[in-house]
Amino acid sequence: MDNIVSLAKRRGFLFQSSGIYGGLANSWDYGPLGTLLKNNIKNEWIKFFVTSRDDIVLLDSSILQSSKVWEASGHVDHFHDPLIDCLKCKKRFRADQILEEKLNIKAEGLKNEDMDKLIFENNIKCEVCGGSFTKVRNFNMMFKTTLGSLEDNGETVFLRPETAQGIFINFDNILKSSRVKIPFGVAQIGKVFRNEITAGNFIFRTLEFEQLEIEYFINPRDADKYFDELLKYTEKWYSHIGIHKKNLKYVELDENQRAHYSKKTIDIYFNFPFGFKELESFANRGDYDLTKHSQASGKNLNYNDQEKRESFIPFVIEPSIGLDRLILALLVNGYREEEVNGRKRIFLKLSHRLSPYQIGIFPLLKDGKIDKMALDLYNLLKFKYRVVYDDAGSIGKRYRRQDEIGTPKCITFDVQTLDDNMVTVRDRDTTEQERIKIADIDSYLDSCFI
Amino acid sequence: MDNIVSLAKRRGFLFQSSGIYGGLANSWDYGPLGTLLKNNIKNEWIKFFVTSRDDIVLLDSSILQSSKVWEASGHVDHFHDPLIDCLKCKKRFRADQILEEKLNIKAEGLKNEDMDKLIFENNIKCEVCGGSFTKVRNFNMMFKTTLGSLEDNGETVFLRPETAQGIFINFDNILKSSRVKIPFGVAQIGKVFRNEITAGNFIFRTLEFEQLEIEYFINPRDADKYFDELLKYTEKWYSHIGIHKKNLKYVELDENQRAHYSKKTIDIYFNFPFGFKELESFANRGDYDLTKHSQASGKNLNYNDQEKRESFIPFVIEPSIGLDRLILALLVNGYREEEVNGRKRIFLKLSHRLSPYQIGIFPLLKDGKIDKMALDLYNLLKFKYRVVYDDAGSIGKRYRRQDEIGTPKCITFDVQTLDDNMVTVRDRDTTEQERIKIADIDSYLDSCFI
Repeated sequence: MDNIVSLAKRRGFLFQSSGIYGGLANSWDYGPLGTLLKNNIKNEWIKFFVTSRDDIVLLDSSILQSSKVWEASGHVDHFHDPLIDCLKCKKRFRADQILEEKLNIKAEGLKNEDMDKLIFENNIKCEVCGGSFTKVRNFNMMFKTTLGSLEDNGETVFLRPETAQGIFINFDNILKSSRVKIPFGVAQIGKVFRNEITAGNFIFRTLEFEQLEIEYFINPRDADKYFDELLKYTEKWYSHIGIHKKNLKYVELDENQRAHYSKKTIDIYFNFPFGFKELESFANRGDYDLTKHSQASGKNLNYNDQEKRESFIPFVIEPSIGLDRLILALLVNGYREEEVNGRKRIFLKLSHRLSPYQIGIFPLLKDGKIDKMALDLYNLLKFKYRVVYDDAGSIGKRYRRQDEIGTPKCITFDVQTLDDNMVTVRDRDTTEQERIKIADIDSYLDSCFI
Repeated sequence: MDNIVSLAKRRGFLFQSSGIYGGLANSWDYGPLGTLLKNNIKNEWIKFFVTSRDDIVLLDSSILQSSKVWEASGHVDHFHDPLIDCLKCKKRFRADQILEEKLNIKAEGLKNEDMDKLIFENNIKCEVCGGSFTKVRNFNMMFKTTLGSLEDNGETVFLRPETAQGIFINFDNILKSSRVKIPFGVAQIGKVFRNEITAGNFIFRTLEFEQLEIEYFINPRDADKYFDELLKYTEKWYSHIGIHKKNLKYVELDENQRAHYSKKTIDIYFNFPFGFKELESFANRGDYDLTKHSQASGKNLNYNDQEKRESFIPFVIEPSIGLDRLILALLVNGYREEEVNGRKRIFLKLSHRLSPYQIGIFPLLKDGKIDKMALDLYNLLKFKYRVVYDDAGSIGKRYRRQDEIGTPKCITFDVQTLDDNMVTVRDRDTTEQERIKIADIDSYLDSCFI
């Protein structure tokens, strides 16, 4: 993990947020390469789940939403962490996490009374000072702020803790303005905010993060069918972006582990350096959300199937990915250290679909000829591929740099190129090199980046 | 304007935010087509300003930032609206906007005392009830929230009101982790938040909005040169995305109209239905921000030019576009009404670079042959272009639908297609139709969408 964090900072994937002022806990800024990687993931996800399919549309709803949304959805009442304070040193902890650590049980979703009991029975004390704990209290994790110019008469609004509700409250708008028919999905990418008190494990758990969410609306009687179908498609997604099967674990939750509204949930775990942890939650939310919003707003949110002459509140299948966790997963999944001739080689095995750059172009000499040829190819390729021009330092240094940021192919122009119009193409993963005619480069690259 | 708002809602570009609960003032959600349009603009902006150039990199910093950032930048002290209350009906107004309306002067940037004087001397009263006003008071426009689990001992953080500061506080990180050399720029796209009290004009002024910002770092002595160069490139950007020259106005601000830190500012105005209003601000911010952050953090933010053996705090040129305003500008810029055979035709003249879809594919019959051919072409083209398959309603209705959402080309499969393997391609702007061989469609489209 330390190696990955170090690489991410060194190469400009991630910086500590507000780091110049000592940093803001559990917050990270994406540097130049991290932003490229993140954008590539978003675009690939949209391609895979929206534009290459015909049944899923996009939405981009607001971060600030009326408090009525969160009252109806249950977040005001239920979206909280169970916290305990040390009576002696006053430090604050999440009770469920302490229990999971100390007793090696799954404590998420336990009732506060049961957690109190477990803490008492097992004589669990503060790990900092040994003090006793208060009883478990609920702390709502939504950030709130005040809208309008006076705090005392302003309107309280919440920063959304999930993008999903923005989809449910627009269900009727989408039905009316587009030609979607059940089964159909609405996909959304966006920032969400959770007031977490626990440590972050780099970008695994942060105050603000991005979600990739789909709400897939179906006839209730088809729930199992589409749950399975979309889950299979999700498995393909992870293979499409190069995540190894052995790094993933699909775990179905028991009824008492699931969120209260869920009919079925499969958590998709990734093999992080700190253990298999949740990367995606895949749930059948039933008709819970639409029913709640229908009741609270007084609006009819039924779907009318005119062909089958049915009217119902759809069930919804929700695949929900934490984008920042996915980025961490991709870094972990791709990080490699090798010994080559007694020297350590670090490389990042990212799919060419996601890597910040796909091609590095190196002129070995700046003689006005070799670098001119290299620059010409760079200017040609950069409208089709993601290309970086690198003319600084020794060839070994340049390979190391591109290896560490995951560039799959590097093209070198050397003295011989002047004679034979050929370049050396070197592969990131095998380090194998081959000579290719410049005229053939475009079709060669096409075959690499299908 | 009403026509544009109506089209945007009807076709799923924009919905009122939290509309199911009566709406949140000055907030909008992007529907399926609005999200496609927005994503296309972002991707095109990145292509134009980042990937097709070699001197600008990306960044994606946090929305929640330490309050120290905003103390140093001057936002805590200076980022406010001058507000006045009616003493009688208690309604609240922005003093500068009232003065601009009533006296037809440029009041932004005036001192509070001067505004008080103008209101008194011109006997300006509340337009609602005729009451007198309080003196002008400052109201800070940053949203704040509390981090941590206790409100009383939590840390106050602000939702960023601009993306720019995220770039300045990462200046040193970017220098150290990448190989940028002056002149270089850092580009960022992201949500920002401003607690505005004034009416919005649709998506022109909203509580949360997205910015497209670049901070271009230069040697102070080259400021004018790069200001002009980047401004010219910006003019090209607007022509690249199809905004008419006559809809833009470049206005240089006087010293007393400029932000206090600015050495030179050109506001780029667009011809909105409610007048020429700011779309982009293009400013030379000098070394103000880096100097402030250097002083406040105690860190040395000098740039060391090793070739020229110089060390200095760079000046910065900042082009800052409001993305939501740009979307409104594009809708206004492209909206057309025509009479065709006595019937009104509405179409949206969007650049093929930005339109939600580039191609509509219509099978005229669902006979298992014609629709099969259409679907085959759809499935072929959708990996290269943005394509929509539309088989619902009469051909006229389908044209109207695609015209209104700005799809440049529609391809119709009819009975004759079965014989001659040709399709009818119809142009959105001219409504002209031509017969093209299916085998030639791909190269035909290539020539349309350069």
